[in-house]
Amino acid sequence: MSEPSREKPRGTWLRTAAAQINATVGDLEGNTRKIREWLRRANDEGVQAIAFPELAICGYPPKDLLLKTQFIDDQLKYLDEIVPETRGMFAVVGLVIRDRDCYNAAAVMHDGRLLGFARKVGLPNYRVFDEKRYFQRGEFLSAYHTDAADIGVLICEDVWHPEIVSKMAASGVELILCASASPFHVGRPLERETMIRARCQDHSVGFVFCNLTGGQDELIFDGASLIIGASGRTLARGMRFAEDLVIADLPFTEIHRNRLAAPVQRDVIPGEPLTREAVKIHSSDGSTRPYELRNRRAAHPNPFLLTSEPVISPIADAYNALVMGVRDYINKNGFKNVVVGLSGGIDSALTATIATDALGPENVLGVSMPSRYSSGHSKDDAADLARNLGIEYKQFAIEEVFSQYLELFKEEFADRQPDITEENLQARIRGAILMALSNKFGNLVLATGNKSELAVGYATLYGDMCGGLAVIGDVPKTMVFQMARYCNESAGRIRIPENTITKPPSAELRENQQDTDSLPPYDVLDGILHAYIEQDCGIQEIVELGYDRELAARIVGMVDRAEYKRRQAAIVLRVTTKAFGSDRRLPVTNKYRSG
Amino acid sequence: MSEPSREKPRGTWLRTAAAQINATVGDLEGNTRKIREWLRRANDEGVQAIAFPELAICGYPPKDLLLKTQFIDDQLKYLDEIVPETRGMFAVVGLVIRDRDCYNAAAVMHDGRLLGFARKVGLPNYRVFDEKRYFQRGEFLSAYHTDAADIGVLICEDVWHPEIVSKMAASGVELILCASASPFHVGRPLERETMIRARCQDHSVGFVFCNLTGGQDELIFDGASLIIGASGRTLARGMRFAEDLVIADLPFTEIHRNRLAAPVQRDVIPGEPLTREAVKIHSSDGSTRPYELRNRRAAHPNPFLLTSEPVISPIADAYNALVMGVRDYINKNGFKNVVVGLSGGIDSALTATIATDALGPENVLGVSMPSRYSSGHSKDDAADLARNLGIEYKQFAIEEVFSQYLELFKEEFADRQPDITEENLQARIRGAILMALSNKFGNLVLATGNKSELAVGYATLYGDMCGGLAVIGDVPKTMVFQMARYCNESAGRIRIPENTITKPPSAELRENQQDTDSLPPYDVLDGILHAYIEQDCGIQEIVELGYDRELAARIVGMVDRAEYKRRQAAIVLRVTTKAFGSDRRLPVTNKYRSG
Repeated sequence: MSEPSREKPRGTWLRTAAAQINATVGDLEGNTRKIREWLRRANDEGVQAIAFPELAICGYPPKDLLLKTQFIDDQLKYLDEIVPETRGMFAVVGLVIRDRDCYNAAAVMHDGRLLGFARKVGLPNYRVFDEKRYFQRGEFLSAYHTDAADIGVLICEDVWHPEIVSKMAASGVELILCASASPFHVGRPLERETMIRARCQDHSVGFVFCNLTGGQDELIFDGASLIIGASGRTLARGMRFAEDLVIADLPFTEIHRNRLAAPVQRDVIPGEPLTREAVKIHSSDGSTRPYELRNRRAAHPNPFLLTSEPVISPIADAYNALVMGVRDYINKNGFKNVVVGLSGGIDSALTATIATDALGPENVLGVSMPSRYSSGHSKDDAADLARNLGIEYKQFAIEEVFSQYLELFKEEFADRQPDITEENLQARIRGAILMALSNKFGNLVLATGNKSELAVGYATLYGDMCGGLAVIGDVPKTMVFQMARYCNESAGRIRIPENTITKPPSAELRENQQDTDSLPPYDVLDGILHAYIEQDCGIQEIVELGYDRELAARIVGMVDRAEYKRRQAAIVLRVTTKAFGSDRRLPVTNKYRSG
Repeated sequence: MSEPSREKPRGTWLRTAAAQINATVGDLEGNTRKIREWLRRANDEGVQAIAFPELAICGYPPKDLLLKTQFIDDQLKYLDEIVPETRGMFAVVGLVIRDRDCYNAAAVMHDGRLLGFARKVGLPNYRVFDEKRYFQRGEFLSAYHTDAADIGVLICEDVWHPEIVSKMAASGVELILCASASPFHVGRPLERETMIRARCQDHSVGFVFCNLTGGQDELIFDGASLIIGASGRTLARGMRFAEDLVIADLPFTEIHRNRLAAPVQRDVIPGEPLTREAVKIHSSDGSTRPYELRNRRAAHPNPFLLTSEPVISPIADAYNALVMGVRDYINKNGFKNVVVGLSGGIDSALTATIATDALGPENVLGVSMPSRYSSGHSKDDAADLARNLGIEYKQFAIEEVFSQYLELFKEEFADRQPDITEENLQARIRGAILMALSNKFGNLVLATGNKSELAVGYATLYGDMCGGLAVIGDVPKTMVFQMARYCNESAGRIRIPENTITKPPSAELRENQQDTDSLPPYDVLDGILHAYIEQDCGIQEIVELGYDRELAARIVGMVDRAEYKRRQAAIVLRVTTKAFGSDRRLPVTNKYRSG
């Protein structure tokens, strides 16, 4: 047997943690209960310094709840229940404070006492964020002197500003605890890690980055919290899309290295002083419970050490994000089960599969609503899917109701050819059926449209757009195919029928209809849409990417004209850098045409 | 005959104007054409200094169009067509500029030359505004020296900040031209006038406040531009809800008075210098077209003098706002006519009346869709209304389709009592009928729900909530009654049938249903809703206003639970201080309950 102890790093250690919880907006009592429980858990694990997410007590983002004075006062009251649980630890918990104005802040506590509040300086007011609507910018940064290390406290966006971290490090801070609520999109976890590792390397500071996890309306918080050493090495990484108490021991050799490297400078924001509060350490001679951060875990091995980056495909990552997004939207809104219209097509199949993984097959009802235009294989595919997933399956043929509507309009439409009216009518009958089942049995309707359809308006308002949540409304059609394949591959068996994946997409709202009748092939469509929507390209720029000008102009026109539909769409779970919803705020009345 | 000239004020005059145009978002070409035409009109009227609205070239608010670089560049190009039309005048036109970052700015032009750009300093980021999402704060204020007066240029929100006007006045500015896009709510025009008159009095500056007019999605811009003398006297006031070239002659005695009163100080924002650009006046000896602001209109009478405040009832004001809101939404989106479901009730009657006044009776189709629960008088009332308004009227009974749906669900719902499901189904059939008519004939569906219903969720998603525009979605039910009376009184005849106004409100979705079965009387309901929604009161505060605690808690709970419906509602025209939509951004997932 070798001597493993020889390979352990020497010196003393600081045990740090990120309490990656799933907080619910407005659930002050539930969030507080969870914070207290996790503080106790952390204490049991010997944790000495811990960070919780941004606005952990009230959930993120509370939006216009923040305009209610009572809401802010209510969540502040819950802090009193949290402070006593920090015995033996240095703890940071996000919340809102009022001090003439409102601040996005973090309560900084130590050993059962409240030391003060750190205030967020960098307020994001772009993409999905509106923090300048609610918060005043913090006037100073906060750092605390402890016997173990000088600890700086930052909040989310602060970290993305190099000058903020730089100022804090330059003032002598050795370890930064950051309370964060950074939403997911494909690629985001790695961007975040790369950025924070660079901050650590740049300034020789250790970092505990605690990110929120969970779904909140359109936003999905992945978690993926990080504990990174002053060398820039990732010591621990939180799970994605799940709660996790992430623990790592930071060696003091790393923590103390930067004392030599960094000049001591105290102003953190230009022109504003850094607030430094000395933690009044209980001295060993006077205190009943001495606080000995430095020596508590001498020569402790690091059981949590982790350096390699996780290998997760973007498709798997987005899929898991959607599973959490569905689960949290349904459960946090007091629902238990869902109903999904199954056309036999790939969009509804994928939506039902995600719902099954989120809620369990017993909580998903699949409903097939064939019309005179539905092919035999569509009905079979829908039934096969339900069987594969193990979900309940019902069928309601829409022919009789459809005929009755046509009868009603017989005179009115006598001299008109069938057109989009009759197509939409079928979609609206299906919508009404799903809503009736929802009303009668209390399950929530999931909308099944994908991002490409929603973009060009290839969807019926009050028809297939019905539902409380648009599960794959931010998933381009090309990615829908990839996800469907992933569902089957990751399960090691056929869940989504092969025929559903391989047949040419069709809305089946008239005889022999195919998507490509009115749309280009999906890889071309998605390329143009990505450039126009996510990159804000003009038509000329799209042409320069290699697309046909006439086609680009036609697609862009379709996107612009469909804005009114999207305004009334269900909440779209966000997995790309720009989803429909609060991420993309365009006027409906808009005569601008990109040239 | 008397000698009228003796009563004219002595001295010289500066003829000023506010070009209160109705710009359309994104219609760069159309807006530019209009600006050029109005500059020519103003020149013909002898105007010497003129202001256009904020972002006049691109319309307000362009929202995320501002994230497209090409959009900003495109609208800047149109400025080249405007500059030459300013011959003989000092002119201010709102637009977006790029100078490393984006600014909400105003082009300042004189006599066919571009002098520079004023930048907005006060960026609103509250209520319906998101300007910090797009714009950088201006680093300086701009003032221009002319031979007539020193002219300062401000943009909208700037004026609401006393310190900005104060700094500008203190630097020696005698006249302020302000480009504005200030949206309407009941009472807003008077608040604006009171504020600007105070600014004039405080600093002895003259003011040309040019406000946008027209509807843009939920926002309605009233216009009501103002020209106010340095004494605080209103010299001219623009029309409300219409375009208007507002002209007034400012006497130089007033303009020059403040030279003595105000200390000359040049820094406008603390720490930032005031930019003052001397207008290179064509001297009379060198120029082919001398610019003689001071003497151009010597001893001119002021034909536009106006001092008394207009007497407009809040009800009339809100009604006229909605008329403009409907007209502009329909026309600017390329529609010509609308379809309204007529239940015989007051909400749909008021909506149809507003639509008729907005578009003309020939462009409004009223559709009655009686069910087994519709009373005889409801059908009569709907037909009477259509006759009174002179609009086309059609009837589609929903019984057969409804029966067919019930047949479809016969087995599924066999062991369940009829409930909200069957009520909603009727509403959804009606929605589908209106949408089918819209799809077939191209007229836009107007939603008819009022604010009180939308607040408590007393409306069916994809049913009566169908439509492109919720015309009275910001009108509380008590105000609906007042507006209905106003419609008849102002017309001097019955337009909305008396029975429609006086009968107890009912949704008629089941036997003998009345609104008061599930809701308190509307005056009580609206009192609670006003406190909760517009004032952000908690339940305790509502109780302190004199309402029953249990009732208040029940209503507040209903409002909270209906958030998911409002998220998918049609655009609501805004006439109060807080409308549903971009004005009130609450999470759907929200476990907070006000105590």
